[in-house]
Amino acid sequence: MSPASATAHEWHRVRIDLGERSYPISIGTGLLGDTDSWAGLPRAAAAMVVTNDVVAPLYLEALRSALAPHYPQVHQVVLPDGEAHKDWATLNAIFDALLRHGCDRKTVLFALGGGVVGDMAGFAAACYMRGVPFVQVPTTLLAQVDSSVGGKTAINHPLGKNMIGAFHQPARVVCDLAVLDTLPPREFSAGLAEVIKYGPIADMDFLSWLERNLPALLARDRDALAHAVRRSCEIKAWVVGQDEREGGVRAILNFGHTFGHAIEAGLGFGEWLHGEAVGCGMVMAAELSQRLGHVDAAFVERLTALLRAAGLPVRGPSLGADRYLELMRVDKKAEGGDIRFIVIEAPGRAVLRPAPDAIVRDVLAACTG
Amino acid sequence: MSPASATAHEWHRVRIDLGERSYPISIGTGLLGDTDSWAGLPRAAAAMVVTNDVVAPLYLEALRSALAPHYPQVHQVVLPDGEAHKDWATLNAIFDALLRHGCDRKTVLFALGGGVVGDMAGFAAACYMRGVPFVQVPTTLLAQVDSSVGGKTAINHPLGKNMIGAFHQPARVVCDLAVLDTLPPREFSAGLAEVIKYGPIADMDFLSWLERNLPALLARDRDALAHAVRRSCEIKAWVVGQDEREGGVRAILNFGHTFGHAIEAGLGFGEWLHGEAVGCGMVMAAELSQRLGHVDAAFVERLTALLRAAGLPVRGPSLGADRYLELMRVDKKAEGGDIRFIVIEAPGRAVLRPAPDAIVRDVLAACTG
Repeated sequence: MSPASATAHEWHRVRIDLGERSYPISIGTGLLGDTDSWAGLPRAAAAMVVTNDVVAPLYLEALRSALAPHYPQVHQVVLPDGEAHKDWATLNAIFDALLRHGCDRKTVLFALGGGVVGDMAGFAAACYMRGVPFVQVPTTLLAQVDSSVGGKTAINHPLGKNMIGAFHQPARVVCDLAVLDTLPPREFSAGLAEVIKYGPIADMDFLSWLERNLPALLARDRDALAHAVRRSCEIKAWVVGQDEREGGVRAILNFGHTFGHAIEAGLGFGEWLHGEAVGCGMVMAAELSQRLGHVDAAFVERLTALLRAAGLPVRGPSLGADRYLELMRVDKKAEGGDIRFIVIEAPGRAVLRPAPDAIVRDVLAACTG
Repeated sequence: MSPASATAHEWHRVRIDLGERSYPISIGTGLLGDTDSWAGLPRAAAAMVVTNDVVAPLYLEALRSALAPHYPQVHQVVLPDGEAHKDWATLNAIFDALLRHGCDRKTVLFALGGGVVGDMAGFAAACYMRGVPFVQVPTTLLAQVDSSVGGKTAINHPLGKNMIGAFHQPARVVCDLAVLDTLPPREFSAGLAEVIKYGPIADMDFLSWLERNLPALLARDRDALAHAVRRSCEIKAWVVGQDEREGGVRAILNFGHTFGHAIEAGLGFGEWLHGEAVGCGMVMAAELSQRLGHVDAAFVERLTALLRAAGLPVRGPSLGADRYLELMRVDKKAEGGDIRFIVIEAPGRAVLRPAPDAIVRDVLAACTG
């Protein structure tokens, strides 16, 4: 038992079931600084913590201390914060650090941060010496409920978001709810967008729970957070377990993301947070679902109201319909030039399908500006 | 039957057995320009041929024409030739071309060229939208017998060769022996180094066959080439089929490569051809095997004589022992700071093991300068 473990407590454990690539998600409090959280991982001469300049002052030393009993050497690399830095130059800073320290191909990478750190550290782990193990230590709500789970890693290209990446599953995900205390309100709301997402695509009871418990979540109540993170991870685990490499059903996790990515790219990455763009994108995708005849106006309004109450923008920026369409045509789900969207077929059930440009233009007219 | 197929002939087919990632290697003449060679591949709205500025004038149009019946669009990207360009900037030119043409995640990449083109096109295919299919169309002897087979893809980092990459198996490998006619003698010899490699690590009968048939190979006799390429691919298939991700036995394919990579990096990538460095590295690794007590001086001399007769350098450049050791310590096979070498345990049998620095220094003193 480590000194810190008196205050550490694992509330829930969710398993991602992918055969020999299976791994657990631990959800609890005080886990990050607890040595016991890091037992049983692949052994190596060195660990490398990848983090950013916002998270490092808060949690880097606690994690390093907790890792020290497990690895002879614990190195670190501190990246600049933000989506704007999710590029090759920043990724290369990780490779430089690994090579400078003579890290071999058993080295274990620890991604300490939000979705950007997780995506970059994960992609670095996928490529360094053709693949080393890595562990996700998500410090934002968005990363805990979405991006740290499922093995998608990537960097952005000037012509499109997450265009260059790999599927590379982590060895473990550790969600410490205590670190959410220091998350700025804007980032917390952005994370709620991805939590809310799981309702319309998979579980309307969870949507109702979120409506009832939104005040508790916004107050960062630990019980409410533990349930929201667990249920989100359970749904993601269920989807990813069926379709690891997004040949089919996994695409539903991208509800709101086609419109959202266009907002992010159109404004320049980093102007809106990813979760903000996705929240707004879900309003647009719900509107599209209504115009395609699948859901009624009350459903769209209910989702919009919850997102608004969560502190999220619900109207898209005025990029112009042509620019939106141009940006959406490079989406990874596009095929043979057709943009494809996740639409809600019925509340709690989503599907990937193309939509006529004319209807998409109507949606843009109704939901932007 | 395509117009070109009258002259096309598949001499041998070797299968790489990796479960759902299995694929065939076709070895023959006239295959590149034959439409039938490209039947049965994954369907897509577009194919993208990745090649270089030396190969493009010779074979790009023939391949494009043969692909045209199978894909509505056939794009191309022509990279600068040479190991010195196996870097991120050149890789990014492939991503730029894919995104500029609006290529989706079904796009099939065709690597038309030698090992550098194959490694880069393969790594681009591994990463573009987290993975698209690709086909190897190797145009050098080295690529036909080694680098195009087995799914290793990578780019170089200033601090080490092939440090950033992925395991990504091709959907097919097509070795057209006719294209070897245009290969410059220096590159042909470099390819022979990787052919010769299969003797000491796996098949001394093949080494004897090579000794007898070297004049025919150097004259680019088709029968001799067909046998050499087939036997090389069979041995590689046998090794890779046991150990796709180099957890164990696959490392023996790196015989000569630890010393060889140090030569390449120490002189600057591109100064010596990869095969030249590997050929010379095999002499050094054989010398090391002798000093470790596994093989006799006659074995070292026999291998050295064959490499020399194949037109390859057999003495390493004078980088100094300290520099050699420094460069070898970042080799991917190194673990916990120990350099590990492929040594010949007995003629026809290789194994990965560390060696004391003092003995490595003796080898460097005997084999360089």
